Amino acid sequence: MISPRCAACKYLRRRCPSDCIFSLYFPPNDPQRFACVHKIYGASNVAKILQQLPSNLRAQAADTLYFEAQYRIQDPVYGCVGIISQLYQQLHDAESELAKTQAEIAFLNCNPQEEVQPIEANYSANFNYLLPDQYCHPSTQNSWFS
Amino acid sequence: MISPRCAACKYLRRRCPSDCIFSLYFPPNDPQRFACVHKIYGASNVAKILQQLPSNLRAQAADTLYFEAQYRIQDPVYGCVGIISQLYQQLHDAESELAKTQAEIAFLNCNPQEEVQPIEANYSANFNYLLPDQYCHPSTQNSWFS
Repeated sequence: MISPRCAACKYLRRRCPSDCIFSLYFPPNDPQRFACVHKIYGASNVAKILQQLPSNLRAQAADTLYFEAQYRIQDPVYGCVGIISQLYQQLHDAESELAKTQAEIAFLNCNPQEEVQPIEANYSANFNYLLPDQYCHPSTQNSWFS
Repeated sequence: MISPRCAACKYLRRRCPSDCIFSLYFPPNDPQRFACVHKIYGASNVAKILQQLPSNLRAQAADTLYFEAQYRIQDPVYGCVGIISQLYQQLHDAESELAKTQAEIAFLNCNPQEEVQPIEANYSANFNYLLPDQYCHPSTQNSWFS
């Protein structure tokens, strides 16, 4: 019985050798996965990255290469760095809110008769609004591109 | 006067044409920058990504490609996705701490004679400890690789 070629060998129109570096991580039922990493890194660069790793780490490396390639295709300017900028900004917002809340507790401890109004919900932990114009917070850029 | 070749053309041992796609973003005084993106993406893939963009976005794209390439060289398994996992985990921790603090304010408002002890500093917004064994928080993996 001839085993089916992996997605990479199918894409590259070649025979799939028994020791194919791609076959375990790019199965034939998901051709888009290889097409995606091929478009951004090229087959030989993906092979090089996988080959330099011990076999137990290759699946995770293939997953993260695919993840980064998807985001670079979706957003050719920022790629994954757009997500990093977003998360960094959200973390900064959460920290500011936390500091503010801790200051309110300190105030309440010193003034037990006072009442503090609930904090306005101006902080939102929503990971889905990865909008291009929000990627480039200046503080983020200074931190990550230095 | 012959203008100096850009870092890419020097690396590729070729003449630097006047309309070189790399020259503005890979200056000759920073050869490492091109060597880095070349190692991960290859020259032709970097050129393709830059060429598809309007010229005012290319510098930012070159910066983010360099950033991602650096992290992939530093950490061939996780690359930039390691940073994303870290930030995601830190954000989750900050949110938990914020929720806890808000609950304490609500408690103080209902029990004005009570005193709440300052929150222990078990949350630390330190971006420098990007350690490999902290990359793979299960909740992060579920969210980002689905």
